[in-house]
Amino acid sequence: MTLPRRKSRPVKVGNLIIGGGAPVSVQTMVKASPDDINAIMAQINEAAELGCNLIRLAIPNRAALQPFAEVKRQSPLPLVADIHFNEHLAIGAIEAGADKVRINPGNMKDWEAITAVVKAAQQAGAAIRIGVNSGSIRPRKGEDNRDLATALSEDALYYLERIEAMGFDQIVVSLKASDAPTTIAANLAVAGKMDYPLHLGVTAAGPEEDSILKSAIGVGGLLAQGIGDTIRLSFTGSPAAEVRAGKELLRAVGLLRDRVEIISCPTCGRCQVDLQEMAAQAKARLAHIRKPLKVAVMGCEVNGPGEAAECDVGIAAGKGKYALFRDGKLLKTITETEALDVLCAEVEALAEKFDD
Amino acid sequence: MTLPRRKSRPVKVGNLIIGGGAPVSVQTMVKASPDDINAIMAQINEAAELGCNLIRLAIPNRAALQPFAEVKRQSPLPLVADIHFNEHLAIGAIEAGADKVRINPGNMKDWEAITAVVKAAQQAGAAIRIGVNSGSIRPRKGEDNRDLATALSEDALYYLERIEAMGFDQIVVSLKASDAPTTIAANLAVAGKMDYPLHLGVTAAGPEEDSILKSAIGVGGLLAQGIGDTIRLSFTGSPAAEVRAGKELLRAVGLLRDRVEIISCPTCGRCQVDLQEMAAQAKARLAHIRKPLKVAVMGCEVNGPGEAAECDVGIAAGKGKYALFRDGKLLKTITETEALDVLCAEVEALAEKFDD
Repeated sequence: MTLPRRKSRPVKVGNLIIGGGAPVSVQTMVKASPDDINAIMAQINEAAELGCNLIRLAIPNRAALQPFAEVKRQSPLPLVADIHFNEHLAIGAIEAGADKVRINPGNMKDWEAITAVVKAAQQAGAAIRIGVNSGSIRPRKGEDNRDLATALSEDALYYLERIEAMGFDQIVVSLKASDAPTTIAANLAVAGKMDYPLHLGVTAAGPEEDSILKSAIGVGGLLAQGIGDTIRLSFTGSPAAEVRAGKELLRAVGLLRDRVEIISCPTCGRCQVDLQEMAAQAKARLAHIRKPLKVAVMGCEVNGPGEAAECDVGIAAGKGKYALFRDGKLLKTITETEALDVLCAEVEALAEKFDD
Repeated sequence: MTLPRRKSRPVKVGNLIIGGGAPVSVQTMVKASPDDINAIMAQINEAAELGCNLIRLAIPNRAALQPFAEVKRQSPLPLVADIHFNEHLAIGAIEAGADKVRINPGNMKDWEAITAVVKAAQQAGAAIRIGVNSGSIRPRKGEDNRDLATALSEDALYYLERIEAMGFDQIVVSLKASDAPTTIAANLAVAGKMDYPLHLGVTAAGPEEDSILKSAIGVGGLLAQGIGDTIRLSFTGSPAAEVRAGKELLRAVGLLRDRVEIISCPTCGRCQVDLQEMAAQAKARLAHIRKPLKVAVMGCEVNGPGEAAECDVGIAAGKGKYALFRDGKLLKTITETEALDVLCAEVEALAEKFDD
């Protein structure tokens, strides 16, 4: 499966490339207090172990700059400084080693302030994210989605044009709303009008269980259409939870294939075996395999063989027996009792031979 | 928030209207054996109580027709008969009272068989879903997503054109693949080319936890762009689980607003209160309110006031205190201790006055 992706130019953020065909990276944000270096490093190290590629820290005041510099020395991940209102904090963060600064031009004082940040980034080789949020667009209340999406996209393109005119191009762009339809509409509106990488997220999406759905729709819906270079799922919860969910989202959309994917049917009145149990057991027994294999567990002869055939290996149930498929071809018929063992052995054998 | 939706013509399925601006309906499928009327009715009644609008049953053979007729007499929901291969089963199901039959023309014998089904539906006033699946498109293996999406969309449009030419227009169309990108691409490809209602789903999406993400991306990504008239989330799990997830998806995309939605920020180093706890408590205390109110619980002064202002009621934390907003206006500053009570009292008061 090759998902056609929007072409974007590469932007260097420390040792990470965003855009330009690089894998979609996963970000989160440190939630510990800016003066608690140990707590910050614990969150960064945990995020890194879970596969996070880039991490952001809020710099709310000058006192946060010195610990930020120390965190930069210790961090295994490139760092983004999150700045609002104050250009001196952005310049200070760049001097302290920030690989990228995230600014929302809409809440900076004036263009002189923004120009100073861009010059500092240019000299230091740091990138800038232009991050436009529904929270800083006015007026909001009473406007429909299209208006807010249009406002987000027009603001982002205007800021981009002005910053690009300063001779700076290490730019990532984000347009975030607190609902998925606006987020999708805003990003679709800019995706064809410029070629800078897009950072995707649904902002203020709420508690984890609500946010996962909104983010899957908003971020996943764009990724599924080939749009998006880096993602951040934002929860009212831990950075680790955000990273785990971000990686799961990449798997669900097919952009990260680092384990066995189970394709199993929902079953219906045709199904004469306990398919839910079979799928759950196959998933558990194949969870250790770190290869991009697609395994079908299908309940009947209608769509079963067809969908099993799309997969690397698959079984489709008949009356008291299963058909075993590999690479689109029927291999043999097996009994219900042996089906799980035979399927798992086939997958293990394929995984052994798999060329990394 | 008004999501612009694709215009589709209304199709009558029993007492339910699909398309034509009707609310997006939620479907599931009975998984009990076709001869076990009690088990079938238990699944249908549970689904109906959870807000399911339409339910489908597989008719694998002639023996299933008589219990289907009895289920039709007892069912509070309109029924769809799921038919593969055999036109006589489709005609039998229509005679037994099916409100809609789902056929995949790609696996029917020939056009004579399909014509016989269309005639029976026409005479009985039943609808037909043309359901095209990745499992019945050939060749599959080795093609990329675009090819499979194109194949699904071309097949669906071809079947639609031929059935429409028979003078029949009570048609719902579905194009399903087992991955979200193909599902989105296939539906986007047909959405502008015809005005029949679209039934959305990702097929064979796997165990519940995997399927929720894939369906949120595929089904939710389309709904968020205004496409889709009825949905079915398919899990290797119970009909009740499918219905619950379908309703949650409609809520997440803003198409079902029947309770309080919490907008809360992910927090960062700026946040000086325990926002995760505050958001969780607000959510729990407001869970009983069945009104479409949007409540913000924001952690700081940066995006907080802006995003709180988008909501009906909101609080944004400062240092040891909260700002209380209603309808975009700052009402007053309240202490951290009283914040939850004051917020909940405001929401309760708004809910009282809310015009249903």
